[in-house]
Amino acid sequence: MKLLRVGPAGAEAPALLDGDGILRDLSGVVPDIDGALLADDAALARIAAAAADGSLPRLDAALRVGPPLARIGKIVCIGLNYHDHATETGAAIPAEPIVFMKAPDTVVGPDDTVLVPRGSVKTDWEVELAIVIGRELRYAASHEEALAAVAGYALSHDVSEREFQIERGGQWDKGKNCETFNPIGPWFVTADEIPDPQALGLRLWVNGEPKQAGSTADQIFPVAEVVRYLSQFMALYPGDVINTGTPAGVAMGQPDPKPYLRAGDVVELEIDGLGRQRQVLADA
Amino acid sequence: MKLLRVGPAGAEAPALLDGDGILRDLSGVVPDIDGALLADDAALARIAAAAADGSLPRLDAALRVGPPLARIGKIVCIGLNYHDHATETGAAIPAEPIVFMKAPDTVVGPDDTVLVPRGSVKTDWEVELAIVIGRELRYAASHEEALAAVAGYALSHDVSEREFQIERGGQWDKGKNCETFNPIGPWFVTADEIPDPQALGLRLWVNGEPKQAGSTADQIFPVAEVVRYLSQFMALYPGDVINTGTPAGVAMGQPDPKPYLRAGDVVELEIDGLGRQRQVLADA
Repeated sequence: MKLLRVGPAGAEAPALLDGDGILRDLSGVVPDIDGALLADDAALARIAAAAADGSLPRLDAALRVGPPLARIGKIVCIGLNYHDHATETGAAIPAEPIVFMKAPDTVVGPDDTVLVPRGSVKTDWEVELAIVIGRELRYAASHEEALAAVAGYALSHDVSEREFQIERGGQWDKGKNCETFNPIGPWFVTADEIPDPQALGLRLWVNGEPKQAGSTADQIFPVAEVVRYLSQFMALYPGDVINTGTPAGVAMGQPDPKPYLRAGDVVELEIDGLGRQRQVLADA
Repeated sequence: MKLLRVGPAGAEAPALLDGDGILRDLSGVVPDIDGALLADDAALARIAAAAADGSLPRLDAALRVGPPLARIGKIVCIGLNYHDHATETGAAIPAEPIVFMKAPDTVVGPDDTVLVPRGSVKTDWEVELAIVIGRELRYAASHEEALAAVAGYALSHDVSEREFQIERGGQWDKGKNCETFNPIGPWFVTADEIPDPQALGLRLWVNGEPKQAGSTADQIFPVAEVVRYLSQFMALYPGDVINTGTPAGVAMGQPDPKPYLRAGDVVELEIDGLGRQRQVLADA
């Protein structure tokens, strides 16, 4: 299933994109799309049944799309997780996953405005596959146990300010938590629709020009290993999100003068099966 | 005012510690202690009025104390923010604040069990002054504007796993987000009761032996500067928490064999005016 949240920012209602690409109202079936729903098999079954019997009201396809998850608990991010991206940044291939964090308050909808922070000259793009957790998980003993805690996937834009991240005091979080820095969506797609998360194409354009074109096949640490690994260091809860890293093609990896983002730029990104985002940049 | 939350984990009710040290029930006045309350002057005034007129029911002083804030949005932490702690770790004095993050799901009550992660041999203590935000803040132009966004303060234990933090891939968050790694409380104390946040003694004991005894006067970046600085990189919201760093005396700073924490150890900590915590360590 493809679940989403539509309506004004802060007042989104749950919806479903059906097999014919028609937007359907879920507000009569579940109160919202969040971690509690993802952990509730009966509620998910009610959505599936309502989708199958054709009873869900049709919604206006022009509604704003918000983030597909409410009340995200935490966003854990993996750095340098594609061979080609590690190479372009001049970094060594990590021996184990590099972990940093974004605050859930950075999350906006897939087509919302992204703000270039005041004083920023190195705002950069990163198309990423996001994992969404659906079961509590601690100290997973196997990749199978880890994957069983994955509710599904979403398209995520891990916007990054490279000067703040790298040149301003040593920990990456400083360049990862600016307001609007994590567009997610349009859809949360249940794991059953993504039979192989290591075979997804990821693409990103700036002002219509192709910048990133990678595949999750190039991930150094695949989804199952990322989830297993993280569960050794932290408890994972339904509604947690994991941004799994970006392939080559970010501005930081390009020759000088590097084409960092400015107000007015348009970023578009997509992942096979997970939909497409389009953001216009503006000054904070 | 000293506000707190008492009762079973996950089902705490709001309470007040009155001027005579008596625990009073606030559940008839406000639904909970959270960011929404801290941003609501009228609700805070109702609490003050109820406290003054003596109408609040008395509570059992033996009730479990939970974290003093529900629904924390994000926890931003400042690293190496005391001259004496930077010196003991052999680090240079930071030119600007070092920023990392803890997930709100690491928060437990002040006297709850702290878990030594599986595989951990370097679990360490850090007594810290926590700032609690009460107003949205972006790009503060002055220390006065920054302080106006501070609702109050709390005692915070920034439990840290040094191997995970430093030896396992480069970003500190990996050693800061283990389950139970952030006891907060017992109280949220409104800013009016802490006229000078740079004149607070902080102390910590392990198994009764004094380990840390510092003062916020030794902070490299004081409260007003920490809040002003962070607001340049991220939006701050009511209910956000900032852990402002720890003074000297952590296990990592001591001669080999360093006395890292193990199951059965007892950590006690306090800050002037902010109360006292006591945790027994256990294996995860």
